[in-house]
Amino acid sequence: MTSQDLNSLKVSRDRLLTDLHYTCQWGTGKRWGENTTDTGMRRLALSDTDKQARDWFVETTKAAGCTVTIDAMGNIFAVRPGKRSGPPTFAGSHLDTQPSGGRYDGILGVHAAVEMLHVLNENHIETEFPIGVVNWTNEEGARFPISMVSSGVWAGQIPLATAHDLVEVTPPRTETLSAALARIGYNGPTEVSHTAIPMAAHFELHIEQGPILESWNRKIGIVTAVQAYRWFTLDVRGRDAHTGTTPLSARADALLTAAKMILHSHRIATKLGCVASTGILTLEPGSTNTIPGHVRFSLDIRARNDGILDKAEEALRRDFAVIAAGEDVGGLNDGATPGKACQVEWRTDSVSSEIDFHPDCIKCVTESAEGVFGAQAKELTAEMVSGAGHDSVYTSKVCPTSMIFIPCKNGVSHNPEEYSTPEDCALGAQVLLGAVLRYDRLRAEKAGREY
Amino acid sequence: MTSQDLNSLKVSRDRLLTDLHYTCQWGTGKRWGENTTDTGMRRLALSDTDKQARDWFVETTKAAGCTVTIDAMGNIFAVRPGKRSGPPTFAGSHLDTQPSGGRYDGILGVHAAVEMLHVLNENHIETEFPIGVVNWTNEEGARFPISMVSSGVWAGQIPLATAHDLVEVTPPRTETLSAALARIGYNGPTEVSHTAIPMAAHFELHIEQGPILESWNRKIGIVTAVQAYRWFTLDVRGRDAHTGTTPLSARADALLTAAKMILHSHRIATKLGCVASTGILTLEPGSTNTIPGHVRFSLDIRARNDGILDKAEEALRRDFAVIAAGEDVGGLNDGATPGKACQVEWRTDSVSSEIDFHPDCIKCVTESAEGVFGAQAKELTAEMVSGAGHDSVYTSKVCPTSMIFIPCKNGVSHNPEEYSTPEDCALGAQVLLGAVLRYDRLRAEKAGREY
Repeated sequence: MTSQDLNSLKVSRDRLLTDLHYTCQWGTGKRWGENTTDTGMRRLALSDTDKQARDWFVETTKAAGCTVTIDAMGNIFAVRPGKRSGPPTFAGSHLDTQPSGGRYDGILGVHAAVEMLHVLNENHIETEFPIGVVNWTNEEGARFPISMVSSGVWAGQIPLATAHDLVEVTPPRTETLSAALARIGYNGPTEVSHTAIPMAAHFELHIEQGPILESWNRKIGIVTAVQAYRWFTLDVRGRDAHTGTTPLSARADALLTAAKMILHSHRIATKLGCVASTGILTLEPGSTNTIPGHVRFSLDIRARNDGILDKAEEALRRDFAVIAAGEDVGGLNDGATPGKACQVEWRTDSVSSEIDFHPDCIKCVTESAEGVFGAQAKELTAEMVSGAGHDSVYTSKVCPTSMIFIPCKNGVSHNPEEYSTPEDCALGAQVLLGAVLRYDRLRAEKAGREY
Repeated sequence: MTSQDLNSLKVSRDRLLTDLHYTCQWGTGKRWGENTTDTGMRRLALSDTDKQARDWFVETTKAAGCTVTIDAMGNIFAVRPGKRSGPPTFAGSHLDTQPSGGRYDGILGVHAAVEMLHVLNENHIETEFPIGVVNWTNEEGARFPISMVSSGVWAGQIPLATAHDLVEVTPPRTETLSAALARIGYNGPTEVSHTAIPMAAHFELHIEQGPILESWNRKIGIVTAVQAYRWFTLDVRGRDAHTGTTPLSARADALLTAAKMILHSHRIATKLGCVASTGILTLEPGSTNTIPGHVRFSLDIRARNDGILDKAEEALRRDFAVIAAGEDVGGLNDGATPGKACQVEWRTDSVSSEIDFHPDCIKCVTESAEGVFGAQAKELTAEMVSGAGHDSVYTSKVCPTSMIFIPCKNGVSHNPEEYSTPEDCALGAQVLLGAVLRYDRLRAEKAGREY
């Protein structure tokens, strides 16, 4: 196929969106608007509704001529044969959602890949190598508390037993991941491994989940990298005391101390040009008239590279110790009453280094976007760094990978109101299709040179 | 009786502490030390263990010659006859505890009053008027969420129906207060009213629950007043957003905003010489990688008088609105990234004005302490203001009232490690006994003059 031929292949916006909203009947969430599809999603990994969406995926890809393989993490790989054998070039994402998620995060990436199969079939395209579509299990980490766990096992980065033994963190909090797989019949026989199920490349279309494309007025984000992040749990321990009878000077107030730390982490992030966020905070004992003796909070710091994160972590570890001791950092204690010291402990939950995507994949996405937008490509696309983690982070460790972003309204995600326009969804699917086919052609050219 | 005679009556330290620890077999809580009695208490109001303690109270006071009356809030009034009839002079407190409470808060006040009965009996004392011992229901507000609710109904300050309809806030969160009363058989037939069950006066011995007596090296606090307090619930609403994909400038971070407010409330309290505390904080949605869109927190402000509280509330309402709008107050935004505005809403949960105790009662406590300490009284006692609310706040609205405090270790209360020495417990009970008998004599003198 020539580039011209590639540009003539068109995804069907209507089919893409009709199918996407059809599968969102399984796990429909909170309503936010008047249209039929104005709802969020609650489709927890390996739930009954996730099974229904998976069954649709298996039936649809089989009907599209694919061979379907399910591995022992429930990852589903659908492969459409090419002219010759070899590892398929994959596109995909995940069908599970946050408890209070939307219709696009992950779901769009799977549906765009399925739409790719339909376009290939209706145009009777025979690709050089096989083409695959993948649905990864429990990407969100919302039910079983490791994000991207199944691509992590596949890439050899997370032990299978660790993943299988995860216990759901959503009520009733009793089922393990392996039990949930068995219950819905998705405990496949195939080894979870990038050697057992190799990929030539992995492409993932995703909503941006942030406000950048929207604010820049761009239609397509060419994702070149994923920022580094580290997750910590902080425990601040002071002493429970009665709010009415304990003078400010006699307090070891764990919440006041944590409040200073949270504000300070924001200041450090501002200074170093990274982001710091606290999304979870719990305290004990939890009574209006008792000063909390114990506060636990999450700290999520992210930066373009590990060097910046090293600096941020170092500054925060140093300054939190000073704040806990009751001493001043940056004027936090201005106008405050000196109190008693608290203790602070750090636990590192997750460390993810910066990821650079593969130049060949980035090139295919860029050329595909040029094919879609023509002379307007420069104005309508932008290279960008992903702020969030995705299954593509793990695939990038063992095969060439890159991602494509489309704008989402107000940058909102992990929220029922998450929304991307049908136009933007279709543009994203169109760029995905072109990128996968260009990569397939690139492999053939390289193979031609090599053999 | 002469003052000399009064001073010759001695409480039994051993009996007092033996009885107190005996009843602490019902609802024993967390162990913190090696001695048998080194545990906290978890005796929620109207629970099965509270019933066992109540049964002991009824049997013991009946055996001590009292007539026992139970009202429709489960308050228990035990009355020992005097030479003549008339409203009894009461001593008492409460037998319920916090979920993670100690062995002294409330419990000591009831046991000291029961010990008073034993001393009167073994010395064959006939008082001028009847003497009463009272156990108030659900003082803590820890199970049914209004503190001091039953003295509040008795004093005509809280409607009976409001109290009866309270639903437990501890698991399983299903039972109403009236159902709990019926279940344990303490739904008494007597009207809950200070006219149906009048008191000539109310004296309450209590642990200080703060560090002041300990730091001043005083044995007895002569409580002259209770500080004013106000409880609020604050809702801060921003927008849920992904921590990795949302630049600091695009965030409406409800937790960062709440952290600024909590720090600022501490600064305002420092400036105005009052206290401000946050004991409860919850957030949504509660995920490491999601910026919280909603934070709810309690705010408890207390001051010596309503005027100071007025100023504090006014300043906080004004400044919280500014903080929510993202603007600076007092340098909080130094080095911070300007973000999007949040909304803040206030709900007033509780307002309690300053309370001055009755001069006659204060005088009886002072003279009793002088009887106990002799020439050392000035060094070993101190007039003080209660920082916490007590049933005595409500009784003071309808009858002469005052309180006696003893030190507690490190000022710790509402904690399993709450502790007062046997010596201090006995000294407190001794001062209580003397105060009640002096008040009884004072009434007789006044009656003699009047009639």
